[in-house]
Amino acid sequence: EALGEGDEAFTVVVLGASGDLAKKKIYPSLFRLKQNGWLPSKFSVVGYSRSHMTDEEFRARVCSHKDAENLSTFCPNNHYVSGNYDSVDDVRKLSAEIAKYEAQMGGKRSNRLFYMAVPPSIFVPTARALRQAAMSPTGWTRIVVEKPFGRDLESSRLMQRELGSLFAEDQIYRIDHYLGKEMVQNLNILRFSNVFLRPLWNHNYISSVVITFKEDIGTEGRAGYFDHYGIIRDIMQNHLLQIMALVAMETPVSLSSEDIRDEKVKVLRAVPPLSAKDVVVGQYDGYLTEPDVPADSVTPTFAVARLHVNNTRWAGVPFILRCGKALNERKAEIRIQFRDTANFLFPGALPNELVIRLQPNEAIYLKIMNKAPGMSHDLVQSELDLTLANRFTEAQAQLPDAYEHLIRDVIRGDHSLFVRSDELDVAWRIFTPMLHELEEGKKKPIQYPKGSRGPSEGYQMMVENGFRYTSSDYKWPNA
Amino acid sequence: EALGEGDEAFTVVVLGASGDLAKKKIYPSLFRLKQNGWLPSKFSVVGYSRSHMTDEEFRARVCSHKDAENLSTFCPNNHYVSGNYDSVDDVRKLSAEIAKYEAQMGGKRSNRLFYMAVPPSIFVPTARALRQAAMSPTGWTRIVVEKPFGRDLESSRLMQRELGSLFAEDQIYRIDHYLGKEMVQNLNILRFSNVFLRPLWNHNYISSVVITFKEDIGTEGRAGYFDHYGIIRDIMQNHLLQIMALVAMETPVSLSSEDIRDEKVKVLRAVPPLSAKDVVVGQYDGYLTEPDVPADSVTPTFAVARLHVNNTRWAGVPFILRCGKALNERKAEIRIQFRDTANFLFPGALPNELVIRLQPNEAIYLKIMNKAPGMSHDLVQSELDLTLANRFTEAQAQLPDAYEHLIRDVIRGDHSLFVRSDELDVAWRIFTPMLHELEEGKKKPIQYPKGSRGPSEGYQMMVENGFRYTSSDYKWPNA
Amino acid sequence: EALGEGDEAFTVVVLGASGDLAKKKIYPSLFRLKQNGWLPSKFSVVGYSRSHMTDEEFRARVCSHKDAENLSTFCPNNHYVSGNYDSVDDVRKLSAEIAKYEAQMGGKRSNRLFYMAVPPSIFVPTARALRQAAMSPTGWTRIVVEKPFGRDLESSRLMQRELGSLFAEDQIYRIDHYLGKEMVQNLNILRFSNVFLRPLWNHNYISSVVITFKEDIGTEGRAGYFDHYGIIRDIMQNHLLQIMALVAMETPVSLSSEDIRDEKVKVLRAVPPLSAKDVVVGQYDGYLTEPDVPADSVTPTFAVARLHVNNTRWAGVPFILRCGKALNERKAEIRIQFRDTANFLFPGALPNELVIRLQPNEAIYLKIMNKAPGMSHDLVQSELDLTLANRFTEAQAQLPDAYEHLIRDVIRGDHSLFVRSDELDVAWRIFTPMLHELEEGKKKPIQYPKGSRGPSEGYQMMVENGFRYTSSDYKWPNA
Amino acid sequence: EALGEGDEAFTVVVLGASGDLAKKKIYPSLFRLKQNGWLPSKFSVVGYSRSHMTDEEFRARVCSHKDAENLSTFCPNNHYVSGNYDSVDDVRKLSAEIAKYEAQMGGKRSNRLFYMAVPPSIFVPTARALRQAAMSPTGWTRIVVEKPFGRDLESSRLMQRELGSLFAEDQIYRIDHYLGKEMVQNLNILRFSNVFLRPLWNHNYISSVVITFKEDIGTEGRAGYFDHYGIIRDIMQNHLLQIMALVAMETPVSLSSEDIRDEKVKVLRAVPPLSAKDVVVGQYDGYLTEPDVPADSVTPTFAVARLHVNNTRWAGVPFILRCGKALNERKAEIRIQFRDTANFLFPGALPNELVIRLQPNEAIYLKIMNKAPGMSHDLVQSELDLTLANRFTEAQAQLPDAYEHLIRDVIRGDHSLFVRSDELDVAWRIFTPMLHELEEGKKKPIQYPKGSRGPSEGYQMMVENGFRYTSSDYKWPNA
Repeated sequence: EALGEGDEAFTVVVLGASGDLAKKKIYPSLFRLKQNGWLPSKFSVVGYSRSHMTDEEFRARVCSHKDAENLSTFCPNNHYVSGNYDSVDDVRKLSAEIAKYEAQMGGKRSNRLFYMAVPPSIFVPTARALRQAAMSPTGWTRIVVEKPFGRDLESSRLMQRELGSLFAEDQIYRIDHYLGKEMVQNLNILRFSNVFLRPLWNHNYISSVVITFKEDIGTEGRAGYFDHYGIIRDIMQNHLLQIMALVAMETPVSLSSEDIRDEKVKVLRAVPPLSAKDVVVGQYDGYLTEPDVPADSVTPTFAVARLHVNNTRWAGVPFILRCGKALNERKAEIRIQFRDTANFLFPGALPNELVIRLQPNEAIYLKIMNKAPGMSHDLVQSELDLTLANRFTEAQAQLPDAYEHLIRDVIRGDHSLFVRSDELDVAWRIFTPMLHELEEGKKKPIQYPKGSRGPSEGYQMMVENGFRYTSSDYKWPNA
Repeated sequence: EALGEGDEAFTVVVLGASGDLAKKKIYPSLFRLKQNGWLPSKFSVVGYSRSHMTDEEFRARVCSHKDAENLSTFCPNNHYVSGNYDSVDDVRKLSAEIAKYEAQMGGKRSNRLFYMAVPPSIFVPTARALRQAAMSPTGWTRIVVEKPFGRDLESSRLMQRELGSLFAEDQIYRIDHYLGKEMVQNLNILRFSNVFLRPLWNHNYISSVVITFKEDIGTEGRAGYFDHYGIIRDIMQNHLLQIMALVAMETPVSLSSEDIRDEKVKVLRAVPPLSAKDVVVGQYDGYLTEPDVPADSVTPTFAVARLHVNNTRWAGVPFILRCGKALNERKAEIRIQFRDTANFLFPGALPNELVIRLQPNEAIYLKIMNKAPGMSHDLVQSELDLTLANRFTEAQAQLPDAYEHLIRDVIRGDHSLFVRSDELDVAWRIFTPMLHELEEGKKKPIQYPKGSRGPSEGYQMMVENGFRYTSSDYKWPNA
Repeated sequence: EALGEGDEAFTVVVLGASGDLAKKKIYPSLFRLKQNGWLPSKFSVVGYSRSHMTDEEFRARVCSHKDAENLSTFCPNNHYVSGNYDSVDDVRKLSAEIAKYEAQMGGKRSNRLFYMAVPPSIFVPTARALRQAAMSPTGWTRIVVEKPFGRDLESSRLMQRELGSLFAEDQIYRIDHYLGKEMVQNLNILRFSNVFLRPLWNHNYISSVVITFKEDIGTEGRAGYFDHYGIIRDIMQNHLLQIMALVAMETPVSLSSEDIRDEKVKVLRAVPPLSAKDVVVGQYDGYLTEPDVPADSVTPTFAVARLHVNNTRWAGVPFILRCGKALNERKAEIRIQFRDTANFLFPGALPNELVIRLQPNEAIYLKIMNKAPGMSHDLVQSELDLTLANRFTEAQAQLPDAYEHLIRDVIRGDHSLFVRSDELDVAWRIFTPMLHELEEGKKKPIQYPKGSRGPSEGYQMMVENGFRYTSSDYKWPNA
Repeated sequence: EALGEGDEAFTVVVLGASGDLAKKKIYPSLFRLKQNGWLPSKFSVVGYSRSHMTDEEFRARVCSHKDAENLSTFCPNNHYVSGNYDSVDDVRKLSAEIAKYEAQMGGKRSNRLFYMAVPPSIFVPTARALRQAAMSPTGWTRIVVEKPFGRDLESSRLMQRELGSLFAEDQIYRIDHYLGKEMVQNLNILRFSNVFLRPLWNHNYISSVVITFKEDIGTEGRAGYFDHYGIIRDIMQNHLLQIMALVAMETPVSLSSEDIRDEKVKVLRAVPPLSAKDVVVGQYDGYLTEPDVPADSVTPTFAVARLHVNNTRWAGVPFILRCGKALNERKAEIRIQFRDTANFLFPGALPNELVIRLQPNEAIYLKIMNKAPGMSHDLVQSELDLTLANRFTEAQAQLPDAYEHLIRDVIRGDHSLFVRSDELDVAWRIFTPMLHELEEGKKKPIQYPKGSRGPSEGYQMMVENGFRYTSSDYKWPNA
């Protein structure tokens, strides 16, 4: 796909350039995109934030540790401008600077991508300033926005309404970086190009779907921010629900962004809102003594929720979303457990499971029963496995970071992996009642030790929803 | 399972002890059974054939190259007796010798297993002599018989009728050593303990089943014998059809021998007899100049046949059996190709395939479509793989020879992996009309070069039956 | 089909000719068979019992009330012989009489059918006398036997073993007259020639199967006999279980008697034996005061049992058999209720039901939800109906009695609708433990008023097994 | 449902009040709505057309032949205004008249429904005049528009764009009166509240879907109009395609208008555009000599088209739309034929068919195979039947006219049974290329006699698409 023809100049403006996200994710991704030839040939990168820095100071910050060759092609196109985000005057100056670089690059049209890595509180004012003073006069203008998209249905609607009055829906790219992960992108291909999954993908064969995100670290200095949102808003309501939508949605009529997002909205509308009884929440020991955390905080750092999809395909199948910090391991995966009914010939057989491992060590594996090799007639649990790092050459298996993938999609104008306004709305509709109940103290978080598997009540909920833990003898060999 | 209690003596008599089968398969298997503790503690092995040899001469023949420890436990229990197979007097002497060893072993009961590694022409007379003069007076007597079981329906019925007048069906173990192969034994477990295969295992999802046996060697000195039978009788009518029955049969009501064999007979009864038009036959270049081969022989060394199973599950699904000698590789596998209907979103997707690799390198793999890793949105064909040698420890993955497994089953009295009389009958019913047509010259074998893939007409038949060859880019990594 | 060629004489001997069954069922059926041309042209009917009668006296008994024409063709071929059933001498005289009629009829071969309408206690001695003294010397000899076939597994095995030593299995026709009913015979056609039922006929779609037999009369003078057996042995273990086997069995490989009965045995082997907790038993008020009934009898006159079929198709689906005397109506039917999962769009929809009505008013109807006609958008329960009497012309809809059908099958040598020895065995295996528990007093029958629907515990058991009673608004219009 | 509260006045304005549609359909429907209590209590009906008439003259035209009671309640509320449709001044006068009646009726709000029974050529100008001069100042304003909605994709888009600039989509009710038919409205209930249809409703079980509209009359004086459009535009592209969309669409997430129409659009987007080779067209003998028909007209009066739905559910299933005038009967029906694969036990069985009879004699019946009643073991084709007139009481079975239903829906604001702009677009996308090819003379209509079944090539196309005509012995008894 064309990433901008030769006669179009492209500028990406990173608002919040001095922040963590910019440093850890956005600049490295831009750099690799350049390195791999995915940036338009006429490009410039403009950092913008309140701090005063020269271009050189800024480059030193974002261009260190790079190989020589690319330093010479990527870094010189990096610029820095300082100003207030919500000041129309400052933003007008920014625009003038951009225009200067655009003039240098030449080209018939100049396209501008504003990456909004700014705090949620100044999000809308910043967008307003951009709208007033920094739109591209000749090419497209797109904005990338990062969660949090509000705190609940009401605040989200307010934000989207305001944003919608400033930019058209197709100019807005709401990023959910989980959608950029290799194995998440693989989901549609896996589901819709493999006939063998078709008759299985429904309540007659699937017993439960568990979508897990586990971190082995705590809030790591972000405790103040985190405490304001909690794990459900930070991970579950967006990342995990987006993955669930991709797992559960019906076949779209085409692979276009809009058709896929129509299906995601459709399936999420069939999910009844959660209440506090559908969730187990936890908080790791020591969280309350972290800086900026109120001593009486009830913010969950761990949560397991059980959702249902009230349609023909999924009637009665629990979807378990679970996520937590400071746990025993770092892992994200989708685990689809099949029913084990009618195994009268082999009563000891364990249910099949299809596991899509998102990170680390991306893989798909299908747990099966097999004959124990040799003289024995016993069953043994094993798996049909596709671990990317084992199967593909090193070059192939070196997967791009999700941000890299997504920024490229913005440049290409592909909305498939971004969250549409109505998706956001339906996601908040599901979670808001439960979040409010939690905040009203209807359910207190259960303490759990750092480095543990979280409170046992989480496991309990899975078992009550039919999840069968398989024998402790089994271990995926590539874990 | 008990392999004979401590107070039972066990004697295996190898008739045809000086022959190739005895040397290459039976004695090594008996040795390994002993080595691994699968023989009863009170055992003796008696070789019988026309050649004159002392016990020592015979032991030198069958007990060479073994490790010291087992030499001391296995070989001393080996004896040899010479005589004519069909002579009641000679067999009576054999029985007296056996009785002598039985007396030495002690035990309340003495069980006798006669392994009939003798030419088909003297098969029934030998059985008659055994019946008259060598039955165990105190324990069970079982006979193991090897193919060929006749040349066609009529000769097979005659042989089985005669055999049936001498031994009860449950005393007769008709060996098909393919049934003892690890992955063939795995079939029932795979099919009936894995729920994910259930909705797939029928004509709505399976497009074709191909069962392949390829040898890279020719007749290797057995040309005289081989020319009398040909590849269809030697491989297809027994080994491949048995595997097909296990792939196609309905769920048995239990895992007992009789219930499994009832289902095999049931499904084979739904297979209409073949005629010459359902088969492609070939003969490798140079075959006609091999010793003992008539210059005008039309015996096939290669064959592809297309069978159908006329029942609800398999309506319209071709079962392709193919086998050949002097081909490009040595391989035996079951390949189940799924339909590729309705792939409108990914028109380039190739159909799923479940491959059960029997030899070499035993494996199960399911070919799937996957996202090409990285920035690309392309599809790539890959697989979910379970290769036994990779997945299991060395000890686990060292699979017993099929004969080892089967001889042990005879000792245990387990008929599951042996061919029942009515199975044989229905197998011949399917193949006899076609074989007669071939012998009447209705279809001549097509010449093919040694080391080739066989005549292209074989591939043509597969393609005409809906088999889709996948792109040449794909290669199973463990081949 | 040929019912005996012109050169074969046919004699049916009715043992127990003076009894009720002979009068009510056997003779009327023979008469109608003659009337409709289904008897061989050379035939005679010989009645045999202990009472002394002349041919004329006997004819007066069985040939009254018949139309003139058939009186002249049927009755003259009726004869009577008196004697003891178990006396070899008497039976030899009977045979001589038969031979006399055979000689009169002429023909190359003479076939003899002995219909054993005799009490169970003298059943085996009678068969022994027939075997010794009355076998046809030139044609076939067949015996028709009526239930009860023993009282439990042990007594049944004894009887079948004795019978099996006298007659070959293919000479024995164990009658279960329910198998001769029009709609029971229709079952195989309905199930295996209508594609629309195929994907529905399993646990994913069927919620429960209820097989009902209700009589509005009590024991009607048979109380002495009945009390010895009870409703479970009289109706459930044979009639209802046979119907269940036909509903539940897998597709046979052909429509031959043996293949169908193989499948019935296979499916019944997957039914675990019942215990007292799987059954509700009742006894109608007043039963204990009927003649020949012990005052403390615990014989059930009503029973509901819940069976399972432990195979892939039926896992978890309750099969409810229920039967009773002195109830509110006379009705026999099979009711297959479908699951109502996943009805999120129409939560008020009631589950589909397929009803096969055996008697009275033979019909098949499928209860469906439909739009209430007119302006309303409401749902209304209705049905797709096939009531034989409405759909077919009067002549077509005049269905033969089950006995008529079955006697014709005996003459034709068709065993399809008769019970094979191993079927009997597996049926008793299911019921014997529960019957013994009942007899040990583990569960007492619940009293219910005559003319009622039986004890409410029976309904309770259905509801606990997922049966949903539909609204009282619905009534099948042809009831 | 509320049809306007007591304090809302309701006026329906029939534009084209002197025309045929008004006389035959609109006024009778309004009258019956009043009669059955479905009109708001405060209502008035205003006829508008170019002809000059007094209220009385007009009432005489539309209110004749009515029963006395209703004459007194319905007719007095009927008024008439004359004027040009596209004259803003005239329409302003009409609005003033309406306002006068509204004042008389009283109520807080006044709602206006404009029924546009006007020629297509002045359709947009009329709408423009209404927009400018006749909108309700206090309540809602809705317009009902009748086909033709353009002649092809381009003209339709133009019309919808113009209309869309005047009225919001939710003010526009595009009528397709077939959607108001009882059995068409039943489709969603039938499909989504009956579990038994679920596993059947896809390409594995359905062989073809045939949607038929047959008239036994010719153009009946409308030849001039008809010749301009032809049967494909008049019947197939709207009525039959709408029915096809309801048969083929996926389950909507709710029963709301928008969700249902989303699914209809989705499924129609999966239908590839037709070309001339996908259609058989005919013209009845004598058509060319009818008044206003050009002598060389190639306008089809009969057409059969074969469509496909390229999605997972319907892959490979032909949807046959066929319609014609001057044929042997008047009938509209949906015929879903099931596959007949795998009928090895009953090779003579004919495929099941589900027939939904739209008119006359509304019914649902499922053709099945059944045992021929009586002694025979033969199969006979019969059906499970639900004929509304037989099953429901007279009152229930007296179905409202489609127009009656639809006008009521407009009043209630229910868009479910009306065609949305994007549905129209996708419908034209399917038909336009083929229509243009026909008009370019790529395929000439085949002559057929009046009163025949149409050209045999139509039947040929069905047979080539796998439709199996059943034996001539079968006839639906309620036809």
